[in-house]
Amino acid sequence: IQYDAGDYDVIVVGAGHAGSEAALASARMGNKTMLITINVDMVAFMPCNPSLGGPAKGTVVREIDALGGEMGRNIDKTYIQMRMLNTGKGPAVRALRAQADKHAYHRAMKQTIEEQPNLTLRQGIVDSLIVEDGVCKGIVTYTGAKYSAKSVVVCAGTAARGRIIIGELRYSSGPNNSQPALKLSKNLEDLGFDLKRFKTGTPPRVNGRTIDFSETEEQPGDPEVNHFSYETPDEDYIPVKDQLSCWLTYTNETTHQIIRDNLDRAPMFTGVIEGVGPRYCPSIEDKIVRFADKNRHQVFLEPEGRDTNEYYCDSLSTSLPEEVQQKMLHSVEGLHHAEMMRPGYAIEYDVVAPYQLKPTFETKLVKNLYTAGQTNGTSGYEEAAGQGLYAGINAALRAQGKDQFTLKRDEAYIGVLADDLVTKGTNEPYRLLTSRAEYRLLLRNDNADFRLTEKGHDLGLISDERYNKFLDKKKAVMDELARLAKIRIKPSDEVNEFVEEHGDKPLKDGILASIFLRRPYVNYQTLLQFIEPAPKPLGRRVIEQVEIRTKYAGYIKKAEQNVARMKKMEAKKIPEDIDYEAIDSLATEARQKLEKIRPQTVAQASRISGVNPSDVAILGVYIQQGHIAKINSEDK
Amino acid sequence: IQYDAGDYDVIVVGAGHAGSEAALASARMGNKTMLITINVDMVAFMPCNPSLGGPAKGTVVREIDALGGEMGRNIDKTYIQMRMLNTGKGPAVRALRAQADKHAYHRAMKQTIEEQPNLTLRQGIVDSLIVEDGVCKGIVTYTGAKYSAKSVVVCAGTAARGRIIIGELRYSSGPNNSQPALKLSKNLEDLGFDLKRFKTGTPPRVNGRTIDFSETEEQPGDPEVNHFSYETPDEDYIPVKDQLSCWLTYTNETTHQIIRDNLDRAPMFTGVIEGVGPRYCPSIEDKIVRFADKNRHQVFLEPEGRDTNEYYCDSLSTSLPEEVQQKMLHSVEGLHHAEMMRPGYAIEYDVVAPYQLKPTFETKLVKNLYTAGQTNGTSGYEEAAGQGLYAGINAALRAQGKDQFTLKRDEAYIGVLADDLVTKGTNEPYRLLTSRAEYRLLLRNDNADFRLTEKGHDLGLISDERYNKFLDKKKAVMDELARLAKIRIKPSDEVNEFVEEHGDKPLKDGILASIFLRRPYVNYQTLLQFIEPAPKPLGRRVIEQVEIRTKYAGYIKKAEQNVARMKKMEAKKIPEDIDYEAIDSLATEARQKLEKIRPQTVAQASRISGVNPSDVAILGVYIQQGHIAKINSEDK
Ligand SMILES: Cc1cc2nc3c(=O)[nH]c(=O)nc-3n(C[C@H](O)[C@H](O)[C@H](O)COP(=O)(O)OP(=O)(O)OC[C@H]3O[C@@H](n4cnc5c(N)ncnc54)[C@H](O)[C@@H]3O)c2cc1C
Ligand SMILES: Cc1cc2nc3c(=O)[nH]c(=O)nc-3n(C[C@H](O)[C@H](O)[C@H](O)COP(=O)(O)OP(=O)(O)OC[C@H]3O[C@@H](n4cnc5c(N)ncnc54)[C@H](O)[C@@H]3O)c2cc1C
Repeated sequence: IQYDAGDYDVIVVGAGHAGSEAALASARMGNKTMLITINVDMVAFMPCNPSLGGPAKGTVVREIDALGGEMGRNIDKTYIQMRMLNTGKGPAVRALRAQADKHAYHRAMKQTIEEQPNLTLRQGIVDSLIVEDGVCKGIVTYTGAKYSAKSVVVCAGTAARGRIIIGELRYSSGPNNSQPALKLSKNLEDLGFDLKRFKTGTPPRVNGRTIDFSETEEQPGDPEVNHFSYETPDEDYIPVKDQLSCWLTYTNETTHQIIRDNLDRAPMFTGVIEGVGPRYCPSIEDKIVRFADKNRHQVFLEPEGRDTNEYYCDSLSTSLPEEVQQKMLHSVEGLHHAEMMRPGYAIEYDVVAPYQLKPTFETKLVKNLYTAGQTNGTSGYEEAAGQGLYAGINAALRAQGKDQFTLKRDEAYIGVLADDLVTKGTNEPYRLLTSRAEYRLLLRNDNADFRLTEKGHDLGLISDERYNKFLDKKKAVMDELARLAKIRIKPSDEVNEFVEEHGDKPLKDGILASIFLRRPYVNYQTLLQFIEPAPKPLGRRVIEQVEIRTKYAGYIKKAEQNVARMKKMEAKKIPEDIDYEAIDSLATEARQKLEKIRPQTVAQASRISGVNPSDVAILGVYIQQGHIAKINSEDK
Repeated sequence: IQYDAGDYDVIVVGAGHAGSEAALASARMGNKTMLITINVDMVAFMPCNPSLGGPAKGTVVREIDALGGEMGRNIDKTYIQMRMLNTGKGPAVRALRAQADKHAYHRAMKQTIEEQPNLTLRQGIVDSLIVEDGVCKGIVTYTGAKYSAKSVVVCAGTAARGRIIIGELRYSSGPNNSQPALKLSKNLEDLGFDLKRFKTGTPPRVNGRTIDFSETEEQPGDPEVNHFSYETPDEDYIPVKDQLSCWLTYTNETTHQIIRDNLDRAPMFTGVIEGVGPRYCPSIEDKIVRFADKNRHQVFLEPEGRDTNEYYCDSLSTSLPEEVQQKMLHSVEGLHHAEMMRPGYAIEYDVVAPYQLKPTFETKLVKNLYTAGQTNGTSGYEEAAGQGLYAGINAALRAQGKDQFTLKRDEAYIGVLADDLVTKGTNEPYRLLTSRAEYRLLLRNDNADFRLTEKGHDLGLISDERYNKFLDKKKAVMDELARLAKIRIKPSDEVNEFVEEHGDKPLKDGILASIFLRRPYVNYQTLLQFIEPAPKPLGRRVIEQVEIRTKYAGYIKKAEQNVARMKKMEAKKIPEDIDYEAIDSLATEARQKLEKIRPQTVAQASRISGVNPSDVAILGVYIQQGHIAKINSEDK
C-alpha cells in the first residue's frame, strides 16, 4: 500500500560518506532535503579502516572543506591521532592523515545532520525510484512511502545487493552485518542501467588487551599542529600525549605459508566471488600471490576509538575462512596470543558503471537522477564524500533551476576523480592516487582553500565571514610575495657567513629575497634574519604559502602553462547531439568509445582510452568546421 | 566445514543485557569464558526505552550491583538524568530511575567486557549446541567454529527468529534492524524444547529540533544525589543543570481517532502477529482499545543521548503503518511538526517456555545448559540482566563443580522473578512489578546491599575491600539502632514545643529515641536536636537505614515472621524422582501441573497455580511419611 509521504526539493538515498555530504550541501544551499538511509545508527559509518586522509585522499578532505563540506570538520572533532605524511618530500605529496574514533565520527556526523535546518534524516529503505518520461520524480520506500523530489541522489554504497563472504560462508548483508538493500538494484536494472559487481574486503579486529605491543614499533601522532578543516583553530589540536598511537608489525614466512596452504579455501581464488576487487587495497592472500618474493608485509595495528579495545589490523584484509584468519593472526609478532574479536570478510555489491554518468554525476539515462560514492565504482571514504558533495551540489542546483557545477582536473582531485570516472570508467574499485593527477603540484594539500573557497562561497556553502578571512589570508600571501620580490638582500658578512655555513658560495651582488628563499637551506624564518619583517606579523599558514609558492614557483608556472593549453581544448565543446557515425575518418574503436562515453569537450574526448590524438584532431576540426548546431548550456 | 576453535569453561551466547552479566560474572568467578554475539556493536544495546530502573526494576539493578554485577556501575557512568520516583511514598516503592545515554551505555559495557581478564568477546552467530547424552558440551557457529565448554548460557533475546512488523510490512530481523539468529531456535526445537512466540514493540523516534518543547512540561532530574551502584561516590553525581530533561505531553481525542480509524491496519488486530505481547508495556493501539474511556495518555519525550537529537516517544509503542504513526505523532501537542526519524515497530521472537527450567535456570532437558533474559519469556533490560547474572553464576559454579546458587523470594526481586518464571511460567512477556513480591517491604531499593553483598562476596564477585566497607556500614547502622533504643528523651520544654508545633500532645514521660523517631514528623536530623550525636559522625546512607528500619520496624517484623513460616515449607524438599502418579489423593489438575513444573520444595509447589492448599497438605504429608529416597544435593 503506497501513500504520499511528502515533497522535497532533493532526496538523498543512503547516509554513508557520500550521502551525508550530498544532503548537507543541498540543505545548506537552501533546498528542502531528505536523507533516507537503512539504519540511522550507521550514518557516516566506517566499515573498514578507522582513518581518513593520506596521499590524494587527504587532499580531497581539504577540498571538501574548502567547498563547505563536512568531512574535514567532522574528523577534526573526532580524531585520535593526526600525522602529516611525507614531510620530507615535496608539497605535492605531503598528506595529512588522521586516525578516527570510528563511532564518535559517526555520532558527530549524525548530530550535525540532525541539527541542519532544511534537512530531514529518516530511517527507511528505498525500493524504487519514481521515473516518468525519463525524469526522476522521487522515491518509494519499503513501507510504501512515496516522496516526491525535484532531484534524487543515490549513494547506496556496499549495501546494494550486498553479500558477505568469509571462507565457505556467504550471506546477504550490508557492511558490518547491516541490512542490505535488495530491491533498488533491480529497479535500476529495470530502468536500463548497466550494473557491475565489485567487491572489497576488511581485515579482522583484535582485542588490544591481548596484543603484545612490546613486539611492535610504536607510531605516535605528530607534535606539529595540523587539522583538516581550514576552520579548526590551532588551539584545538590534541597534544601528542593525549593522542593514541598506532603500532607496526609484519607478516612473516609462517604467515605466508598459512595463507598459501589455504588458497583453495580463499573465495577469490576458488571463483566464489564474482565481483572485481580493489587493486590498491588488495587482500592479504592477493598480496602473497602477487608479490610472492616479498618475505614480509607491514601490518599497522590501529585503535578503533577511545572507548574500545578493538584494533584494526591494517593490510590483513581477507575473506579466508575464520579458522585460517585466526592462525594467520597468531603467526604475526605481537599477535601470537591476540584474540580475534571479529573476523575479516569480503563484501560484493552492485555498482552503476560510471560511463553512464555526465560530468556532473547526473545519469545520462534518467534526468534529475544523480549517483555518487561507492555506487559509482569507487572505493574509500574520501572519494565517496568528495563525490557526494559534488553530486549534492548539482542536485541542489538542478532543484533550483540553476546551471550545473563541475570541477576541472587542474582545480581539484575531486575533478580528477569525476573526470576519470565518467571518461575512463573503471573495471575495478577506483581509488584516488596522486599519480592520477597530471597537475599534482597545483592540487596540493596546503592550497585547497586557494583553489576552492571562492567556488564554495559562490555556491552558498562558505559563509561570508569565512570567505572574508580567506581573502585576508590571500591578500597577506600576495602582498608578502610582492614585497619579497622587491627587497634586495645585500651581501653582508652576516648573510655570507650563513650562506657559507650551508656550503654555498658567498654572495657577490645583492639578491632578491624571493630568489634567496628558493635556496633549499633558506626558509622564511631564516630570511627574516636578513630583511625587515612584514609590516603586519604573518600567520604560519601565510608563511607556508609564501614559502611553497616561492620555492616551487618554476614548477608551478610550468604546470599552469599546461593547464592553459588544456583549457583551450576544454573550451571546444562537443554538441550534445553529435552523430559520430557521420564523422567518417574516426577510427572504429574511437567512434565506439565516443559513442559510449559521449564526452562534453574535446579535452574530455582526448582522455578516453582508445581515442588517439589523430581522432582528437579529426573531432576538433569537425566541430570547428561548424558542423555544430548549438551548445546546450544547461549541461555544460 | 567444522573445526575445533577452542575450549572454554563457560560459553555465553548473546551479549545483550543478560549475556553481558552472565559472561562477566563467570569470568570474574575465575572461569575461562567466551561471550559470542551476532554483532559486537550491539553489546548491551537498548533497542527500546533509553532508561533503566523504576519500581521493582530499579531495585533489581541495585541487587545486581550488590551481587557484583555490572549494570549499576555501567548506568552510573552513562546516565544523563537521575530521578528517585515515589519519594512521597513508603520505602518499599521508592525507585531510582535513570535516563541513559543509549550508545554510551553500550560502549561502556563493551569496553568493560573487552578489558575483563578471562573473558573473550567474539562476533559470531551460534547455529547449534553440542549436546551428548543430554549434556551440553559446547556450541557451533555459522563459520563452522566448534567451541567446547563445561556449561553454556543462551541469552538470545529478541534476535531468536526475529521478525519485524510495521503495518503491512514484515521482514526477518533482529532488534534495530540487526541480523536475526535463524538456526539456533530450530536446533533447540530439535533438542525437544517447547518454544513459544512472543512479541514486543517500540515507539517512533523524533528529531528534537522539530519538537515544540514549549507545548510540553519539563521533567528535570533530581538535585538529590543518588546512584545505582553502591560503589559510585556521591561526588560523581552530575549536577542537575548538566542533566538532560524529559518532557511530558499527552495524546488526545484526535490521536485516538486516528488510531481507531486504522485498527484494520494494526497487525495485532488483523491477526498478522501470532506472538503474545506484553500486558504491561502495551502498544498505543492496544491502550486505546482496552481503555476506551480514557481521553488522553501520557507521552514522555526522552532524549536518547548527549550527542544525538533523537527523542524516544515513550508510550507510543506501535506496529501501525508508518503513515499512521506519522499522523498520530502530529496530532500530539509539541509534536505537531515533529519529524519522525525512525518508525516504531513490533518484533516477534522465540522464547523457551520457562517451565522447562530448574530454579537455577539450568534446563531440565539438557544438563549444563542455562537460559536467561528475554529467552526465558521476560521483557525488560533489568529483568534480563538480573537473570543473566543469576544464570551466569550458576553456569560458573557448574563449570567449577560447585553447588548451585539460588535466591529466595524474600531475598531479592531476582528471586521472585526466577521463582515466578520456573514455577508459574508465563503466557506473555513477563515484567517485574512490585506487586509480584509478597515481601516488598524487605526487598527495598535502599537495602539491596544488606540483602546480597555477603552472597556476592561468597561467590567471589564482591572484593574484600568492598565487603569490608559494607560491614562497616552495617555495624554503624546496628550500633546506632542499639544506641537509639537505649537513649531516653526527657519531656523538656524544647521537645514539647517541637512536638506541639507538629500538632502532637506534649510528652509527659520520657520516650525512647527509637520510639520517638517513628513519629512521622521526626527524622534523624530533628532527633539530633534532642539527643547526643553518635560517637562517630554517620554517613547519609547509614542514617537512611536507621530511619527506615526504625520507622517501619513493625511492618518489617511482620514480613520477617511470614518469611520464617515460608522457610519451613521451603525446607521441605521434594525428591527429584518423586512419582506424582503414586500420590492417589492429589487432584488431577494439581498432579498434571506438578508433573510439568516438578517443583523442588513444597513451598514452590504451593505457588503453582492449580495446586490448591489441600494438594499442598497431601504432598507435605506424603513426603514427611518418608516416601522419599534421598535429596539430590547438587540441585538444591
Ligand atoms: C567490508 C568493507 C571493506 C572496505 N574496505 C575498504 C578499503 O580497504 N579501502 C577503501 O578505500 N574502502 C574500503 N571500503 C569502502 C568504504 O567503506 C566505502 O568506500 C565508503 O564507505 C563508501 O561510502 P558511500 O557513502 O559511497 O557508501 P556507504 O558508506 O556504504 O554508505 C551507503 C549507505 O547507503 C545506505 N543504503 C544503501 N541502499 C539504500 C537504500 N536502498 N535505501 C536507503 N539506504 C540505502 C546504506 O545502508 C549505507 O548506510 C570497504 C567497505 C566495506 C564494507
Ligand atoms: C523492538 C523492541 C521493543 C522492546 N520493548 C520493550 C518494552 O517496551 N519494555 C521492555 O521492558 N522491554 C522491551 N524490549 C525488550 C528489551 O530489549 C529486552 O528485554 C532486553 O534487551 C533483553 O535482554 P536480553 O539480553 O535478554 O536480549 P537482547 O538484548 O535482545 O540481546 C540478545 C543478544 O543475543 C544475540 N544473539 C541472539 N542469538 C544469537 C546467536 N544464535 N548467536 C550469537 N548471538 C546471538 C543478539 O544479537 C543480541 O545481541 C524491547 C525490545 C525490542 C527489540
